[in-house]
Amino acid sequence: MHLVAPAPGLLARARLLVAPEVGEPVLRELGRIAGRPVERAAGSVPDGPYVYVGASLPDGLRGGRLVWFHSVNAGTDALLGSGPWPPDALLTRTVGRMGERIAQYVLAWVLAECQAVPEFAAQHARAEWRRIPSELVAGQTALVHGTGRIGSAVAGLLRGCGIRTVGVARGPRAVPPPGFDRVIGADADTEELGAARWVVAALPLTGATEGYFGARRFAAVRGASFVNVGRGATVDLEALGAALRAGTVRRAVLDVLPAEPAAPDADCWRLPRTVITSHSAGITADEDVVTDFGACWDELRTGRVPALAVDVDRGY
Amino acid sequence: MHLVAPAPGLLARARLLVAPEVGEPVLRELGRIAGRPVERAAGSVPDGPYVYVGASLPDGLRGGRLVWFHSVNAGTDALLGSGPWPPDALLTRTVGRMGERIAQYVLAWVLAECQAVPEFAAQHARAEWRRIPSELVAGQTALVHGTGRIGSAVAGLLRGCGIRTVGVARGPRAVPPPGFDRVIGADADTEELGAARWVVAALPLTGATEGYFGARRFAAVRGASFVNVGRGATVDLEALGAALRAGTVRRAVLDVLPAEPAAPDADCWRLPRTVITSHSAGITADEDVVTDFGACWDELRTGRVPALAVDVDRGY
Repeated sequence: MHLVAPAPGLLARARLLVAPEVGEPVLRELGRIAGRPVERAAGSVPDGPYVYVGASLPDGLRGGRLVWFHSVNAGTDALLGSGPWPPDALLTRTVGRMGERIAQYVLAWVLAECQAVPEFAAQHARAEWRRIPSELVAGQTALVHGTGRIGSAVAGLLRGCGIRTVGVARGPRAVPPPGFDRVIGADADTEELGAARWVVAALPLTGATEGYFGARRFAAVRGASFVNVGRGATVDLEALGAALRAGTVRRAVLDVLPAEPAAPDADCWRLPRTVITSHSAGITADEDVVTDFGACWDELRTGRVPALAVDVDRGY
Repeated sequence: MHLVAPAPGLLARARLLVAPEVGEPVLRELGRIAGRPVERAAGSVPDGPYVYVGASLPDGLRGGRLVWFHSVNAGTDALLGSGPWPPDALLTRTVGRMGERIAQYVLAWVLAECQAVPEFAAQHARAEWRRIPSELVAGQTALVHGTGRIGSAVAGLLRGCGIRTVGVARGPRAVPPPGFDRVIGADADTEELGAARWVVAALPLTGATEGYFGARRFAAVRGASFVNVGRGATVDLEALGAALRAGTVRRAVLDVLPAEPAAPDADCWRLPRTVITSHSAGITADEDVVTDFGACWDELRTGRVPALAVDVDRGY
């Protein structure tokens, strides 16, 4: 557990370095928030304590006195997987309006299926007048794997359309997070997988979630459509393909893949009844980075652990 | 105004006739609710008072003692336009879960545009990995013309995604109906048409609404997408086409047209950035007819005017 805030005095004299991937408008705002000059990271270890804002930590900076790293992304698996995390460095992340964005993405694809949006677009192109009945989502069940900020936002929006929302977490919860009707444990989801019309994956990638959606879980699905807005490697694509071909999984919408970007000749493009959306569901905007850095800064100035801190041992 | 309930005694001895377009399962349920035999209408005028359930009123039945007509549809413009309405006959209609259905239809197309659903489907077919940024709907404005059951249901669902909802009614309302942030009068919508990201038409067809969306209103639009879930003849398609070509209307989704069904060579198929969905948004299910007939029956038995009664002079 590295959820210890650096001493405010240490933060007060830390230099502020930003990565090359951070644009000038964001850089200016970060300097304004922190009230100090912002330096472009040069790849060599700074002398004293420093704060770093970026997507990845260059190896050349690992040896220094990194006090706090603010990630411009929500997912930190690639960052944490790139090498041992500096033991005394706090890690925070940018979530921004990602919960809201991803929730609207999921609801868009749920309703697109029920309202036959792609079918009507194709029919229109053929100048064909043919009624297609719609499917009402009210009363259906969505099983949302992951009950954090993103899973909770997804569940809340689905519930607004009358969908029953069941969350899947590492263990059951007596009081479900906002948006959920109930929460069950990941080891007891077989029955709900069979009852669900929608299975939504919103899991971080950790040692415990790699290949989480494999042959066993897909075999329990009875006609649900599958949406992955978490991490690609939580899904075994071969097992998903077998379930799609068997018809137990009705359709799939995959925003993320185990290997991104997918090459034009990759097998994933040939999965039946599937749409791949090129990791677009939760794109982080510049304003998100600035807002979330500012929120962390305000908490750290008073010695609190930011709500956006990442437990580097747990991985999220 | 014909919003007078028939005397319960009259209803008690009325015969129950149903139109050929009503299927057997519905017929059986109607008989169960009314507690009397159901007769298939034969086209000749019955002797005594009678109740009729169907989509249209055959000319042969107009001269009799029609007490109550229950329409299996929500829109009654075609029914009322087919001839003078029998002066003492109450008209009720089937709304069913139409508000919910149409609201999910509207939200599906709103989110499909913001989340690039048709574009991603096309991109997937080309095996192309390319990120497309999404548009968050929170904070946008939807101007919903029509503040009845359907407009209200549409507004409620849009508001659940953070959209500001402004209703347009014949006159402003001090207390907006459920789902609306505010309601303005139809003669004062120019400014809101310019501010809206979404313009939704949910109007019945009456003398006052024919051609309601014409050159003047479309000229006030500044980049909104237009969705029609009301009646086709409330829109001047030539004016809409001009606004689409000028770019002031961003996109159009038309569930209804002035002339339905559209022939394969009809001009409407060539409107730019438009999808036509073949009057599918609010298909009435058998269970809707039964449920709404039952609700009317219960109210009429106690001498009340049903909530689903139509003011035949006003037309809805």
